Amino acid sequence: MTRTVRINRDRLWDSLMELKEIGAYDDEATGLRGVRRLALTDADADARRRCVRWMREAGLEVRVDRIGNVYATRPGRDRSLPCVLMGSHIDTVATGGAFDGTLGVLGGIEVMRTLNDAGAETLRDIEVGFFTEEEGVRFGTDMLGSAVTAGRIPLDHAHKLADQDGKTVKDELIRIGFDGDACERRPIPHAYIECHIEQGPILAAAGVDIGIVEGVQSISWQRLTIRGEAAHAGTTPIESRHDAGLVAASVVVEARRMCDSGDFGQLRATVGNLDIGAGQTNVIPHEATLTIDLRNPDDDHMTAAEQHLARYVHELAARHGVQAAWERMAKTVVVPFHPGIQQLLGATAEDLGLPYVRVMSGAGHDAQEISAICPTAMVFVAGENGGISHTPREYSTPGACANGTDVLANAVLRLADQP
Amino acid sequence: MTRTVRINRDRLWDSLMELKEIGAYDDEATGLRGVRRLALTDADADARRRCVRWMREAGLEVRVDRIGNVYATRPGRDRSLPCVLMGSHIDTVATGGAFDGTLGVLGGIEVMRTLNDAGAETLRDIEVGFFTEEEGVRFGTDMLGSAVTAGRIPLDHAHKLADQDGKTVKDELIRIGFDGDACERRPIPHAYIECHIEQGPILAAAGVDIGIVEGVQSISWQRLTIRGEAAHAGTTPIESRHDAGLVAASVVVEARRMCDSGDFGQLRATVGNLDIGAGQTNVIPHEATLTIDLRNPDDDHMTAAEQHLARYVHELAARHGVQAAWERMAKTVVVPFHPGIQQLLGATAEDLGLPYVRVMSGAGHDAQEISAICPTAMVFVAGENGGISHTPREYSTPGACANGTDVLANAVLRLADQP
Repeated sequence: MTRTVRINRDRLWDSLMELKEIGAYDDEATGLRGVRRLALTDADADARRRCVRWMREAGLEVRVDRIGNVYATRPGRDRSLPCVLMGSHIDTVATGGAFDGTLGVLGGIEVMRTLNDAGAETLRDIEVGFFTEEEGVRFGTDMLGSAVTAGRIPLDHAHKLADQDGKTVKDELIRIGFDGDACERRPIPHAYIECHIEQGPILAAAGVDIGIVEGVQSISWQRLTIRGEAAHAGTTPIESRHDAGLVAASVVVEARRMCDSGDFGQLRATVGNLDIGAGQTNVIPHEATLTIDLRNPDDDHMTAAEQHLARYVHELAARHGVQAAWERMAKTVVVPFHPGIQQLLGATAEDLGLPYVRVMSGAGHDAQEISAICPTAMVFVAGENGGISHTPREYSTPGACANGTDVLANAVLRLADQP
Repeated sequence: MTRTVRINRDRLWDSLMELKEIGAYDDEATGLRGVRRLALTDADADARRRCVRWMREAGLEVRVDRIGNVYATRPGRDRSLPCVLMGSHIDTVATGGAFDGTLGVLGGIEVMRTLNDAGAETLRDIEVGFFTEEEGVRFGTDMLGSAVTAGRIPLDHAHKLADQDGKTVKDELIRIGFDGDACERRPIPHAYIECHIEQGPILAAAGVDIGIVEGVQSISWQRLTIRGEAAHAGTTPIESRHDAGLVAASVVVEARRMCDSGDFGQLRATVGNLDIGAGQTNVIPHEATLTIDLRNPDDDHMTAAEQHLARYVHELAARHGVQAAWERMAKTVVVPFHPGIQQLLGATAEDLGLPYVRVMSGAGHDAQEISAICPTAMVFVAGENGGISHTPREYSTPGACANGTDVLANAVLRLADQP
C-alpha cells in the first residue's frame, strides 16, 4: 500500500447534517424530522446548489449535463486518461432520511477535501457526481439520470417524462437552472465506485460496518389498472359484481403469498400505490390502479414471478368480469458488479483493518446503470434499526459513515494511480 | 274501491328527464350521461329550487325545516288530522342516475298534480317531501335528514358534520338558502309511503314492475385505519415488514370471502374506499384507510359478521405489527315495515291490475327512519340492466315508473280518507 488517507469524519458528518436541513419536514408517522427532497423540486435545487458550492470550495471543476447530472473534477497528472468516478444521488423519496444517496455524494466530496489536505497528486482525474431522479418517485422512472448517461434511456424520452401535475423533466431542469450543456453520454470512466447505505439488516447482523456489493438484484415495476363497474353496495348481489377494488386487493394479497411461498426464490413484492379513485362507501369501485414493485436476485425467478402474476390477474379479471391493463414502468435484470473492483475494495478494507461481508443489493442504484459503461462496484455502509430506509428512522452512525468513506477514498486513490 | 286515479305518465317522465339535467356529467367509465348531485352542492340547490317551483305550481304550501328537508302540503278537509306523507330524496352519489330517490319525489309531485286534475278532495292533508343527504356520500352519514326528523340524530350533531373540505352541513344549508325555520321534528304523519327504484334484479327476474317492501336490511358502515411503517421496497425483508396496504387489502379479500362462505346468511360486503395516501412505488405503505359497508337482512348474522371482521383485523394487525383503529360511521338494525300499510299497498296494486312481489330492501332508505315515527312502507319499481343503480346505467322504463306511481297515488288517496 503506497499511500493511505483518512477522511475527516467530523467534516463529513457536518456536511450530512447540513444537507439534511434542505427539504426537512416533520414526519407525523414517526414523530421524527425527515427529508422530502423529490427530484427537481425547489428543495432538490437548493441541495444541488449547496453541493456545487462545496465542490467549488474544494477547488473542483463543476459541469452539468443535459439531464441535470452534476460532475466535479479534481485533475490528475495525465488528463488524457479516463477518470475515476465516485457518485450517487441527493434526491429522496417523500418520506426520506439523511443518508440514502447523500452519503455517496458528500462522501465523495469529502474524499476530494481529504486528498487536497494531503496534497495528494494522482495520475488520473478523479470525479465526484450526482445523478438526477434516482428514486423515480416524482417522474416514475428510477435511476433516470444514470440510465440516460449509460445510454439505456434516450435523453429526449427522459426530458418528456412528466410528474403527476404534468410538469416535465425538461421544464423542471430549466426552471431550477440545472439544464446543463455537457453531453449526457459522458466520457467513459476508468472505474466507478458508489458508496451507499445498505438499507437492509445484513451488515448489522454480521457486526460489520462495510459491505462489498456483488451486484444488484432484478427490479420490475409495473402499473396495473383494473376497470369494473360501479353499482349499489346494498342491492347488487355478490355474484353480479364487477368490483375493481376487490380484484386490486386480491393482487396485493397474492403478491405477498408469492413471496411467502418460496416458489420464486428470494422474491420481494411491494404494492406502494393503491388507488380506487373518488371512493364512495356505498358504491362498488369501478376502477383501481396499483403499482407492483418486484425484486429478485435471480433473473429466472423474476421471469417466473412476472408470468405467474400476469396469469393470476388474467384469470381473476375473467372471473370478476373486469378489464385489466398492465403498464411496464421499469425493468432491470440482475447486474453483477466488476470482480476486479470488488477485489480491490476488499483489499482496501483489509488494509484499513475494516471487516466486511459480501452482499447483493436489494435496492436499485445508479451503479447498476454506470456498470454498463465501465468497471463498477459499490461499498455499503451499515444502518441502525435493522437498516431501515425510506423513512426518517433511517440512520447510520458517524463511525460507519466514515469507515465506508475511508474505503471509498483509498480505493479511488489506488484506481487513480493505475496506468 | 271508491275512487281510482291514474297519473299522467308523460308529465312524470318529463319531470324526471328535466331534473336529470341538473348535475349532469359525462361518465367516462360508461360513456353515458350521469347525474352528480351531492347533497347541499350547487347542483343540489338548483334541483331543490326546481322541485319547490313545481310544488308551488301545483298549488302546494312549501316549508323547509332546520335540516333542509322540504315539505309541500295539499290541504284536506280536516286539517287537524295527521297528514299522509310521500317522499324520498333528490341528492345522488357522485356517479348517479336519474331515478334513485328522484322517482319518489317527482312521483309524489305528480300525484298532487293528478289529484288537482281530478278535483279530488281528501279528508286529511297530503304532503310530499324530500330529505337532506340521503346518500351520505358527502357528509358521511346516510339518511341524515330523515334520521334527524325521526329523532335518531340530534340536529346539532347533524349541523356540525363536515365534508372532506371541512364544510359543515349547517354552513352549506345557509349558503344554498335551505336553512329553513320549520321544526325538524315534524308533526307525526298518519302514514308514510315512499316509492323508489328497486336497485336490484328481483322484480325484473319475477317479470313484475312492482315490489311491496317488507323491510330494510341491517346496514353497518365502518372506517378502518391501519398504521404500519414506511420502509424500502427492495431491501426490507418480507418478514420484517409492517405493510399497512397489505393488511388493508387482506381485509377487502376477507370481507368478500365472508360473503361467499354463507356463514353470515345473505351478507353483502363492499369496500368502496381504499386509500393508502401518497403512495410511492418503492416504499412500503405506512398507512391505509378503508370503509366497509355491510348489509344483512338478519340482525344476528350482521352481529356475527361484525364480530368476525373485528377478530380477523385484530389478529392480522398483531401478526403484521400494525395498528388498527375502527370508527363507526353508521349502523341500522333490520327495519320491518308496517304490515297494514303493506297490505293496503298490495290491495291497491291488485285493484289496479298490477302484479307485484314482496321483497326486502337491500339499500337503506329514508323510509326506515320515518318508520320510527309512523306506519310506513315502500313501493319498489323495477329497473333495467339487472336493476343496476349508483351508475349512469341506472334505468327504469316510463311504464314501470308510472305503474309504481299509480300504486303510490291510489294508496295515498285511500289513506287520506281514513278517519
